[in-house]
Amino acid sequence: MDYAAESLKKHYEWRGKIEIVSRTPLKTSEDLSLAYTPGVAAPCLAIQKDIAQSYELTRRADTVAIITDGTAVLGLGDIGPEAAMPVMEGKAVLFKELGDVDAFPLCIRSKDVDEIVNTVRLLSGSFGGINLEDISAPRCFEIEKRLKKVCGIPVFHDDQHGTAIVVLAAVLNSLRITGKKIKDVSAVINGAGAAGIATARLLLDLGLENIIVCDKQGALYKGQTGLNKAQEELSQVTNKEMRKGRLAEAMAGADIFIGVSAPGCVTKEMVRRMNQDAAVFAMANPEPEIMPDEAKAGGALIVGTGRSDFPNQINNALAFPGVFRGALNVRASEITEKMKIAAAYAIAEAVSDDLLSPDYIMPSPLHKSVARLVAEAVAKA
Amino acid sequence: MDYAAESLKKHYEWRGKIEIVSRTPLKTSEDLSLAYTPGVAAPCLAIQKDIAQSYELTRRADTVAIITDGTAVLGLGDIGPEAAMPVMEGKAVLFKELGDVDAFPLCIRSKDVDEIVNTVRLLSGSFGGINLEDISAPRCFEIEKRLKKVCGIPVFHDDQHGTAIVVLAAVLNSLRITGKKIKDVSAVINGAGAAGIATARLLLDLGLENIIVCDKQGALYKGQTGLNKAQEELSQVTNKEMRKGRLAEAMAGADIFIGVSAPGCVTKEMVRRMNQDAAVFAMANPEPEIMPDEAKAGGALIVGTGRSDFPNQINNALAFPGVFRGALNVRASEITEKMKIAAAYAIAEAVSDDLLSPDYIMPSPLHKSVARLVAEAVAKA
Repeated sequence: MDYAAESLKKHYEWRGKIEIVSRTPLKTSEDLSLAYTPGVAAPCLAIQKDIAQSYELTRRADTVAIITDGTAVLGLGDIGPEAAMPVMEGKAVLFKELGDVDAFPLCIRSKDVDEIVNTVRLLSGSFGGINLEDISAPRCFEIEKRLKKVCGIPVFHDDQHGTAIVVLAAVLNSLRITGKKIKDVSAVINGAGAAGIATARLLLDLGLENIIVCDKQGALYKGQTGLNKAQEELSQVTNKEMRKGRLAEAMAGADIFIGVSAPGCVTKEMVRRMNQDAAVFAMANPEPEIMPDEAKAGGALIVGTGRSDFPNQINNALAFPGVFRGALNVRASEITEKMKIAAAYAIAEAVSDDLLSPDYIMPSPLHKSVARLVAEAVAKA
Repeated sequence: MDYAAESLKKHYEWRGKIEIVSRTPLKTSEDLSLAYTPGVAAPCLAIQKDIAQSYELTRRADTVAIITDGTAVLGLGDIGPEAAMPVMEGKAVLFKELGDVDAFPLCIRSKDVDEIVNTVRLLSGSFGGINLEDISAPRCFEIEKRLKKVCGIPVFHDDQHGTAIVVLAAVLNSLRITGKKIKDVSAVINGAGAAGIATARLLLDLGLENIIVCDKQGALYKGQTGLNKAQEELSQVTNKEMRKGRLAEAMAGADIFIGVSAPGCVTKEMVRRMNQDAAVFAMANPEPEIMPDEAKAGGALIVGTGRSDFPNQINNALAFPGVFRGALNVRASEITEKMKIAAAYAIAEAVSDDLLSPDYIMPSPLHKSVARLVAEAVAKA
């Protein structure tokens, strides 16, 4: 199927992928008096007395904002706020269908960190959580960091942490298959933007210490010039052997390749130089860093991509609906590292031992039970 | 019925009066590929090429933001942003059920004009229109004025213009009953805030020139000190006889009383001093300026209130769903005076000659056909 042409046609038919509907009847004047004036004064006053009641008396406990400035949309880059909205509406569909979360997309006509932070801060009383989406690095790091301090509700940049969680799940299940220990394996992450940095940090938290992060210039190392703040911090705690050189050199001997970068930058030969029983997670969108058949031909045991038309789809949709559902259910004020790791384990464990195989390490993102399991794990954490 | 207690109970049951639902299926991986990646890149690129396509490819053409800072909620005053949300959700229910408009409530945690303007401006690419709500005067005037210049989509402060439109409809139908001519009648408006000022302006536009606006100090007159800018401007074009004195004096001899003020400030004696076949529109919420039986006892021929439990409910819900539906249908960039007057005539004419009587001058806000008629009239204008 020509997804582009068919999707465009469908979007013209749909005229919007989400809709706001009423949960209350409005047939009689009594309905009006209860849902609106004069009755509505009572819930207003109850919230004025105790703002926490907004979670009981309005839709806040189920509602998340999807915030973007349209600067890093899919692989398309900076296409602008309005043009990002079809992705945001798609995200809202996934939130609802998988996590039973009401997500409302808001695109912001500014790329200025202060303006974005201030806008979201001022709106945070309307929501139970904030999902940041497709905001380019390194601005996304500062925006998230500052919002976490001022909003009082969970703030989660999905391109960072959603990706990190599903990659972690993929890593966990590849270890289940190969029998390798997390302390012994080495990983190369290609892409030193939002997703790559967050993934490295979460893998480190889990105990995978031997990580090299690469960008277009090659391996990041301590003392390298030209790094942004987040990359510089990461260079302190990764690549302990201070290896330099291009991606091909970094991948030599590695157990796991994690691509959050650009189509076609990995070759069969590069995979061939990896360790035995290598795992290749090539998640560039829509074209992966290396096609699965090529990676297999290079000797990889396990291959995953971001795509639904290949085995092992490593898709954020496995994480964010359940993560927010869980956080909202316990009215968490933030989403912690512990909650993210719990989410990754829940996703990984959704694949039972008898089903687990090199071509089946990830559950389908369309299984609603995954979001439920993730929500339970996150709420518990 | 004890509306306060019953409404509070219902709100705890409802846990939110609106909900965001999906308009697209999400059962198969093909569904996912069309609504989300990789297919969704196509509508994104189409919008990047031509931003107007956002009205075709996302829900924008049906979506309105309801914006409040919670400073002038019902008769409750400044109860704060979160506490205003039950009213905003109720408004969203009316938008949907009456006008088939998707309205999403956003409360802003600031009372600063610059911050509110900037927040709404930055979000305006996400919406087809902006409904300002329950923002106190005189800030509401400046906020609306500035937003109209920077948003590029219709901006409508309902407390001003929604009220003005329904009052205009009530005035038009009271003239139909009494046979008085609009050029000959005099009106007293009590309340020199958002609603009173906008109502006076729209009545002037219609040709009702003999208007006195009062506030707690009494009649506004040219040269009076202590007026805000909007009041000062209004004092130039109303009260041409420069009458001074309290509300009681202003009402003497008047044909129409319009109350957008406080409960109980009008007495039977004050009504008795009005002109013959007087109309009293006492719209303070939830208790009117004078109860209908008292106003009738004072000699008023026509009495209207804001309440659904008395005849002649003068309710904004008759106006805003149709006004926005009409503006969205023709993708208007603003809501003009002409559109507002057209809306008022549509509401008035929804009461046919054979049904029109002193106790039936306003159609029920629950008749969906009213919003349809208003939408058609607004779109045409």
